Amino acid sequence: MAVLCRPATEVPEHVITMDDTLAIARDLHRDHPDLELVLRLIGHTGVRKRHLVQPIERTLAHPGFETRNKLFFTEAQKRVPKVVQQALDHAGLTAQQIDLIVFVSCTGFSMPSPTAWLINEMGFKSQTRQLPIAQLGCAAGGSAINRAHDFCTAYPQGNALVVACEFCSLCYQPTDLGVGQLLSNGLFGDAVAAAVVRGDDDAYGVRLERNGSYLIPHTEDWISYAVRSTGFHFQLDKRVPGTMEPLAPVLEALAEEHHWKAANLDFYVIHAGGPRILDDLGRFLQVPADAFRHSRATLTEYGNIASAVVLDALGRLFEEGAAINEHRGILAGFGPGITAEVALGTWTDRRRERLS
Amino acid sequence: MAVLCRPATEVPEHVITMDDTLAIARDLHRDHPDLELVLRLIGHTGVRKRHLVQPIERTLAHPGFETRNKLFFTEAQKRVPKVVQQALDHAGLTAQQIDLIVFVSCTGFSMPSPTAWLINEMGFKSQTRQLPIAQLGCAAGGSAINRAHDFCTAYPQGNALVVACEFCSLCYQPTDLGVGQLLSNGLFGDAVAAAVVRGDDDAYGVRLERNGSYLIPHTEDWISYAVRSTGFHFQLDKRVPGTMEPLAPVLEALAEEHHWKAANLDFYVIHAGGPRILDDLGRFLQVPADAFRHSRATLTEYGNIASAVVLDALGRLFEEGAAINEHRGILAGFGPGITAEVALGTWTDRRRERLS
Repeated sequence: MAVLCRPATEVPEHVITMDDTLAIARDLHRDHPDLELVLRLIGHTGVRKRHLVQPIERTLAHPGFETRNKLFFTEAQKRVPKVVQQALDHAGLTAQQIDLIVFVSCTGFSMPSPTAWLINEMGFKSQTRQLPIAQLGCAAGGSAINRAHDFCTAYPQGNALVVACEFCSLCYQPTDLGVGQLLSNGLFGDAVAAAVVRGDDDAYGVRLERNGSYLIPHTEDWISYAVRSTGFHFQLDKRVPGTMEPLAPVLEALAEEHHWKAANLDFYVIHAGGPRILDDLGRFLQVPADAFRHSRATLTEYGNIASAVVLDALGRLFEEGAAINEHRGILAGFGPGITAEVALGTWTDRRRERLS
Repeated sequence: MAVLCRPATEVPEHVITMDDTLAIARDLHRDHPDLELVLRLIGHTGVRKRHLVQPIERTLAHPGFETRNKLFFTEAQKRVPKVVQQALDHAGLTAQQIDLIVFVSCTGFSMPSPTAWLINEMGFKSQTRQLPIAQLGCAAGGSAINRAHDFCTAYPQGNALVVACEFCSLCYQPTDLGVGQLLSNGLFGDAVAAAVVRGDDDAYGVRLERNGSYLIPHTEDWISYAVRSTGFHFQLDKRVPGTMEPLAPVLEALAEEHHWKAANLDFYVIHAGGPRILDDLGRFLQVPADAFRHSRATLTEYGNIASAVVLDALGRLFEEGAAINEHRGILAGFGPGITAEVALGTWTDRRRERLS
């Protein structure tokens, strides 16, 4: 069965703290009628710091869509290989043993897909399947894991690499002044994360057992991009923080199909879209306050790093070292659509068992 | 086993003939140093006519990236549902019986993915998996079929819908004057195509048996988009028509893995990138002159309709009615990377057999 191995994450070197963010917002938007509301909303995110690919003054400038999109790829080429190598090392595999690369990003666009570059750059096989996903936003992290799981179900001897490369700061739009947009400017961060799904079980990590997707009907305009000559403009509806009410039952239903109770699992890896998402989901699922501690740590340390959140939070679960054989858990990504991508899995350490 | 059912295709109502194309090129580029070469290249495409979403005078104008990208979705919403309904009817399924939608397009970009709209619009289940692919260009048709095949291998009771929506005319860039670009302006057309891959075999069509992908090393810049404030700028290198020399052996190798001979199959569904692609591949594979007749018909009647070519050419194979039980065939999409996506399958008509 497919095992989701230990992920790797890297964040860029340019750090912006909550205090920096608030000071910048206060300065840039001093005449904004909703400034106090925006500052309060940013304060409530709990994002202590974020890591960006450029210093803040360059982040705040807009050099044009073309330049920015090129910058995305310069930065990706600089930062992705190291993370991918770490993920391969964690899985005990070489590039030549990978059969599928799922590359997800909603903050830069290219054709050919970055998978072509990655295959050439890092010596993956020419026969590697390429699956680039650009249009699922923050849900793409869960989606990538689930499609990798499906692939390894179809090819039990196959291995899939998942890469999430999100430089949200390159979608900053100085002319966007809606409350949701100003809040987003204080919420999103940059990161690269990767993990391998191994088709065999000669690995330790989360044995993937079931996955599911769910679209909340008629919510397409709640999270969206306006595509303009200036690039992608993120649009966030104020109804989004309330989406856990319809989505908590989705997680419960998938768990029930698996004869599990969502309230009663050993680990939770949840997309940290914002604090309200985590608070509400915890309340609706009736889980202990620290159940989402890995996701909360990602949000606090890095901000909302879009599709990379679930991989980073999962990495923190590995790092913590508390998960043991047969621990059961759930992983959930949320994003535009409004779409949830959910996976159920059991902690496995058969390799270690065999070695000991 | 997964069966690729009869596809549906629709082309828009605005027709431009080869003569129209040549007259426009002669008029617009009368001072271009390579005008005669361009006219000769366009003449050699063999594209008799193309179908566009707008009248030619509106096609030649550039109203800005934002307007054009919105137009993509207005036109998609007008044209996709009918084609999807036909594809479902061909497969004998309802929207509620579909478990995965693979939506491929490289000529319009949105977040959320068009899959969210399609699910809401046509009554697909909220649980339908969404797989939008925007970055594989013309290879995405083959890729969509192959990922649908993989999905049905993982879930033998599952069904996948593949949709290719390509309005290439919305990527026309009046300021692009390279020879490859002017040739492309005379080559690409608009179309919507769809097909269902049924997990069970209660269907007639191509029983999918094996698939493979191949990236020709270090050819990333041979087919690419420059992403600019004016949208996607298609860039075609003059080495592209020569790519069948390295790719013909890829088709042969996949066939050999399956104990087949690529030279000796009963049907061929090949991406009609241009006449040279089909001529060269036919020569390298040593197949009869009419082996690629369905792909040639797509090229002649509609032009290169990007990821929709393989679905349309496959539709012509169904329409011809000559394929019979146990006929063996190959399907191949080619696109940026340079990437080939190849599938092997056997014609099956078990449903008809049972009914007769």
